[in-house]
Amino acid sequence: MTDRFVFTLIKADGGARLGEIATSRGTIRTPAFMPIGTAATVKAVYTDQLEAAGADVILANTYHLMLRPGAERVARLGGLHTFMRWSKPILTDSGGFQVMSLAKLRKITDEGVTFQSHIDGSTHVLTPERAIEIQCLLGADIQMQLDECVALPASSGAMHAAVMRSLGWAERCKTAIARYRDEGLAQRGQALFGIVQGGTDPQLRELSADGLVAMDFPGYAVGGLAVGEPQEVMLDTLALTTPRLPADKPRYLMGVGTPLDLIEAVARGIDMFDCVLPTRSGRHGQAFTWSGKVNLRNAKYADDSSPLDPASSCPAARDYSRAYLHHLVKSGEYLGAMLLSWANTAFYQELMQAMRGAIAAGRFAAWSRETKDRLAGSGPADGDDEPA
Amino acid sequence: MTDRFVFTLIKADGGARLGEIATSRGTIRTPAFMPIGTAATVKAVYTDQLEAAGADVILANTYHLMLRPGAERVARLGGLHTFMRWSKPILTDSGGFQVMSLAKLRKITDEGVTFQSHIDGSTHVLTPERAIEIQCLLGADIQMQLDECVALPASSGAMHAAVMRSLGWAERCKTAIARYRDEGLAQRGQALFGIVQGGTDPQLRELSADGLVAMDFPGYAVGGLAVGEPQEVMLDTLALTTPRLPADKPRYLMGVGTPLDLIEAVARGIDMFDCVLPTRSGRHGQAFTWSGKVNLRNAKYADDSSPLDPASSCPAARDYSRAYLHHLVKSGEYLGAMLLSWANTAFYQELMQAMRGAIAAGRFAAWSRETKDRLAGSGPADGDDEPA
Repeated sequence: MTDRFVFTLIKADGGARLGEIATSRGTIRTPAFMPIGTAATVKAVYTDQLEAAGADVILANTYHLMLRPGAERVARLGGLHTFMRWSKPILTDSGGFQVMSLAKLRKITDEGVTFQSHIDGSTHVLTPERAIEIQCLLGADIQMQLDECVALPASSGAMHAAVMRSLGWAERCKTAIARYRDEGLAQRGQALFGIVQGGTDPQLRELSADGLVAMDFPGYAVGGLAVGEPQEVMLDTLALTTPRLPADKPRYLMGVGTPLDLIEAVARGIDMFDCVLPTRSGRHGQAFTWSGKVNLRNAKYADDSSPLDPASSCPAARDYSRAYLHHLVKSGEYLGAMLLSWANTAFYQELMQAMRGAIAAGRFAAWSRETKDRLAGSGPADGDDEPA
Repeated sequence: MTDRFVFTLIKADGGARLGEIATSRGTIRTPAFMPIGTAATVKAVYTDQLEAAGADVILANTYHLMLRPGAERVARLGGLHTFMRWSKPILTDSGGFQVMSLAKLRKITDEGVTFQSHIDGSTHVLTPERAIEIQCLLGADIQMQLDECVALPASSGAMHAAVMRSLGWAERCKTAIARYRDEGLAQRGQALFGIVQGGTDPQLRELSADGLVAMDFPGYAVGGLAVGEPQEVMLDTLALTTPRLPADKPRYLMGVGTPLDLIEAVARGIDMFDCVLPTRSGRHGQAFTWSGKVNLRNAKYADDSSPLDPASSCPAARDYSRAYLHHLVKSGEYLGAMLLSWANTAFYQELMQAMRGAIAAGRFAAWSRETKDRLAGSGPADGDDEPA
């Protein structure tokens, strides 16, 4: 394994950026979408399907893996890549977000966060140092600082305090990974990203971004968005945040989003994304296609012998009829979730590939308009709850 | 499609038989195990995995498919092979067994059985003629007569009446498929099997077998076994039933069974099997391996980096650690059910391949002893309910 993490900005087209991250486990083409492998598996999808779909990197969740099977255990078993049979890069979050959304009896101090596992109620402590140690034990190629994710709504005082605490934790994470490198626990090619917080408050976002940039991270994430605010508020916040981040470092918008969110965020200078939407939707009978969203529960597909998406390169979308997918979904069959999760994962990769092609051709703005029309489809979108 | 269904007995070795069934959709090597694709999918397994594992034929359930998505719908969509993307032979049962085990408010007369769907309570009628019509609409290469499956325990009078009624239905099914062939609904290469019933009563089994053989079916099934009786009672019943069936026709033991059941039944002249065990066990964390059963829920596998079964040719059994499979099963992840269902399906195919090899080599008895020792493993079997 070489000890490198190098971002190359190949081309900018308006705000959109075409790039590459060279890592010791392979190159990540950006803009990139990372399928989510929460518990060391992208739900219902084989890793060779991810690879064939064009995924260069996946995300795994520190919170879930520290609780089960445990970071030390994963390390003993050869690290997360070996454990789950995925040889390309892995990004791990720090666990902070899931502690706030899933764990019970949280207590946050400047030292870190104490919480109870949602699985068995056992007590755990996550400090900035431990968050990085866990990510090193997992063997993550891209690691995230521990940050404080404030429960919304929050007062501006509470938001400010969380930003300041997160900046302090960023510094401690940076110090920790340097020490772990010296001790041999971390590899030199493993990169730590800082996370810009501050909600939708421009001053707090500036404060957070400037503080992190001063610490000189190899990459920057934007957190705390897509948590319920309108899309335009998210995009406005992005538009004022990304210009404060260095152009020569990758930018990762955490937990976002719909195909339209991705297109708009790329237009505002974002390079990396993750979201549960393709796999979670797949498990619930929803498909993303080049002609818009398709709700396979809808009775109108019962006799539809056409494929899910003739424009797709994915066998799941191209080779099975909508009638069969409808039947599988209605019958609660595993194969329904398997095929739709696969098809959706492939669609997201195709969307990123199309964006990269448009930027390379210098026509991202035109492509964006055409694609938004195309994804809106020719008729009304399938309702989510239509009886079938 | 050619219009043939030809069984060739290649070699006998004691009671065990090596054979081939040539069908218009490909050759079935016997002894054969048929994975169960109840609702037009072998649960959690892709059809290309079935094919790579060596499955020559799969089973689908008439009862489930007539209720959802409906036989006429499947026919409009091009038949079951096209619908589920499986180009090799398919055997369908007649629906009789599931009507007894799943449906509500059954009423059986000589005409047929009226029942309510377990899905939506709707009322349906299954006559011998309709059971064959449905199987023709599905496009099944091997079809089963409608028979009366008596709820146990039953009086000998009730058993006798069911055998006589089933013989009458066998004749009506035979007449029906001949008529459907004339009308173009059935293909000439589609074969109808009679089903020997009679519980564990030797006289009733003889009555049933002799009556069916007099009708001259292209194949014979043995039904009503493995319903709770001790293995030796099942084997004794088989031992007296198979000699009454013609040597030049395939013999199918319905719904059986464990690897040891299969070995013993092959020794008694059975050529075909189906059972939910490999896939159902896979969904419950149980694996079949060449060193015996493995319960992946068992805590002792949490740190076991060895593969599930190094003797397997299946990637699911060979390429993932027991520790990872344990983690997936404990976490309730789709991939756990997917990998174990795949591995178990492959194990059953390997077992049949090994039996065919042993018969070809004229050493089935010795192979059987060695294999039973091997499957018993070196230590105590994993308990089914051990906490982990």
